[in-house]
Amino acid sequence: MNNAGSIDVRAAASAAREASRTLATLPTDAKNALLRDLATAIRAHAPLVRAANEADLNAARESGLPDAKLQRLALSDAAIEQLARGIEQVASLPDPVGQVTEERTVSSGLLVRRVRMPLGVIAMIYEARPGVTLDAFALCFKSGNAVLLKGGRESARTNAALAALAIDLLAHHQLPAAVLTDLTPISREQVAHLLTLNDLIDLVIPRGGESLIRAVVETSRIPTIQHYKGVCHIYVDREADATDHWAKPIRVCVTAKTSAPATCNAAECVLVDQAIADAFVPALVRAMHAASVQVRCDAMSERIARAAGLDVVAANDADFGFEFLDRILALKVVAGVDDALAHIARHTSNHTEAILTQNRATADRFVAGVQSSCVLVNASTRFNDGFQLGLGAEIGISTSRLHAYGPMGLEELTTRRFVVVGDHQTR
Amino acid sequence: MNNAGSIDVRAAASAAREASRTLATLPTDAKNALLRDLATAIRAHAPLVRAANEADLNAARESGLPDAKLQRLALSDAAIEQLARGIEQVASLPDPVGQVTEERTVSSGLLVRRVRMPLGVIAMIYEARPGVTLDAFALCFKSGNAVLLKGGRESARTNAALAALAIDLLAHHQLPAAVLTDLTPISREQVAHLLTLNDLIDLVIPRGGESLIRAVVETSRIPTIQHYKGVCHIYVDREADATDHWAKPIRVCVTAKTSAPATCNAAECVLVDQAIADAFVPALVRAMHAASVQVRCDAMSERIARAAGLDVVAANDADFGFEFLDRILALKVVAGVDDALAHIARHTSNHTEAILTQNRATADRFVAGVQSSCVLVNASTRFNDGFQLGLGAEIGISTSRLHAYGPMGLEELTTRRFVVVGDHQTR
Repeated sequence: MNNAGSIDVRAAASAAREASRTLATLPTDAKNALLRDLATAIRAHAPLVRAANEADLNAARESGLPDAKLQRLALSDAAIEQLARGIEQVASLPDPVGQVTEERTVSSGLLVRRVRMPLGVIAMIYEARPGVTLDAFALCFKSGNAVLLKGGRESARTNAALAALAIDLLAHHQLPAAVLTDLTPISREQVAHLLTLNDLIDLVIPRGGESLIRAVVETSRIPTIQHYKGVCHIYVDREADATDHWAKPIRVCVTAKTSAPATCNAAECVLVDQAIADAFVPALVRAMHAASVQVRCDAMSERIARAAGLDVVAANDADFGFEFLDRILALKVVAGVDDALAHIARHTSNHTEAILTQNRATADRFVAGVQSSCVLVNASTRFNDGFQLGLGAEIGISTSRLHAYGPMGLEELTTRRFVVVGDHQTR
Repeated sequence: MNNAGSIDVRAAASAAREASRTLATLPTDAKNALLRDLATAIRAHAPLVRAANEADLNAARESGLPDAKLQRLALSDAAIEQLARGIEQVASLPDPVGQVTEERTVSSGLLVRRVRMPLGVIAMIYEARPGVTLDAFALCFKSGNAVLLKGGRESARTNAALAALAIDLLAHHQLPAAVLTDLTPISREQVAHLLTLNDLIDLVIPRGGESLIRAVVETSRIPTIQHYKGVCHIYVDREADATDHWAKPIRVCVTAKTSAPATCNAAECVLVDQAIADAFVPALVRAMHAASVQVRCDAMSERIARAAGLDVVAANDADFGFEFLDRILALKVVAGVDDALAHIARHTSNHTEAILTQNRATADRFVAGVQSSCVLVNASTRFNDGFQLGLGAEIGISTSRLHAYGPMGLEELTTRRFVVVGDHQTR
């Protein structure tokens, strides 16, 4: 296990920058071979990783880490196998580096191409979730980027064991060790220093709770991709599919809330068109209650639910625009699509919004009026996910509009430069 | 002319955010109509703009502004006509907003599109160059973005006159005035406050000297696109076209230095392969001297030049990696393409590098080894420019890799969101 005092952050970033030059031109086959070897190594050394994780867990239990955090810290055999499979999956994806995304001959006769290249050096700052360590390394490596990994301190032993597997393979494949640097042991002050090194690091990706992300954004002089939170809305329009007492819209709403309530793409608020509220609200509340979801109602939906004999909770203002991350739903009746848009404009987290309607014009109006990273028509908000949207991978979901907006896969870990071929043109 | 004290920066940014929602869905025809009216208004009100500019110039002369800055501040009749034409040109460009850049049906049956949308609110921070005011407005407006413009204080009257032309037209076209806000009069402290408003502003583009850009980058909590400087290299390989005593390579080098020495894409350093140095160096130095360029030589090129009876200057270390922005060239002999790449890696500004060679493999090696925003084979560095590379416009040249790398046109002022259509899929 590394010692924080022994890590020179600038030297580490500088070595990563140097290593990124080698990585930038590494052939796809060489990258894939290392990734497949890494998956094999993870399986072969699972007991070693488990032992390191047990040591982290014991220390964390002793220091009184809450249960939810202990669960994130734990790396089960199943999770280790899942990690190995994820890395094999990254190996099988197309390599974005070198892709020509545009090509034109301009009037001077120059042949102008835009060609994808790696960003260079990426720093990931995340909580004590050790799975992220090699997951992030695999995505950065495949896209040709060197990576500095700063996980939560409670996962220091597990991260060191995982990083060692990759670093051993880098040597075996004759690649510089600085392609991956585990900075988990560094101090808060060293993190702050790291975030000033904009001459050496191209991108910072913070992953974790809102406070971690805000702290990074406020300190960093390096471009940062943010994913604050997901307050996802579903608007159920008067022309939603009413077959079987709105069976389909209700199933979409219930699964969007319940299939993974703690994820950022879970629905937090359903807006119901008042034209169907008298019938739809009781049906939805019953289905939510059957799925053990507490429903917090605005005045109108509360009145309708109570009139139907349903015991709901009165919402307060703070329940709208709130990320519950739990089996709790905010419910509100709106006057129609424009009122839904006004509510969303006030409370959006720019993550995901959905409309359920059979009316194409209403759907178009909703899509035009929303500016979130993902807008869905007749589908669950849970589909805002790199795998579900066909990116093949996901390193995070950006809710800021620069560089990438929405889920980020391999392509989003690259930039595009201009490569121009001429015949001695001058100007 | 506005008074700094009367401007509430947060209120201005908040109004811009609100206006950006209207702009996001404004049809292309409506945007083009306003831009064409603006070109007409600029021509019609040229005397008014000239009078404001004269007042700025008089005040600046009295306060002792240096000549170079007075020249930037001046807006001649020709420059005003050029401004009007530039805006008509922007009107004629394709609208990036709404473009579908990807479309796929994924295994769940969802139709997934990535669709271009405006960034939202852009703040431009620039020096006392009043032409930028409406130039930047036109590009931001066409790409659907509201804009906050903070120019150099010496140009306050000119900027106010120009902004008033656009704001009058916004009213006439029934668009919110906050689509464009002239913040030129605000104080340094207000600028610092502006740069914290990452909930309201999506992008900051600083344009000007390196110190202005560094100051913005170090203060801003908003994503910032940087264009620090251009230290552009040309490497003349042993297999450069030698026809007529290297007439073509020499013309490329001389024009790259002299056609606009003060621009960021002018060449600052020529690297000559030692295999041809004995003959090429004297020929190049003669041509540079004929074009009134001072040549600062490393030891080897100095020896060769002096042996040929040429009076050159001995370079010191600081001359390499330096942006002269003047008729001064750094010259160095290198051992070959790899040595050239090593020199560039040490001194690059990530802006533009060029190789002159007839050998395809050497060119490929150079292109692979360089990571600047634009790399050219057998063409002048001066072609790294949004117009020359076919973008149709240019709001700046980014030397950082996030979001955009190289010249930024209309497309680079947009982001892409996911628009998904389903049939009640759940997960």
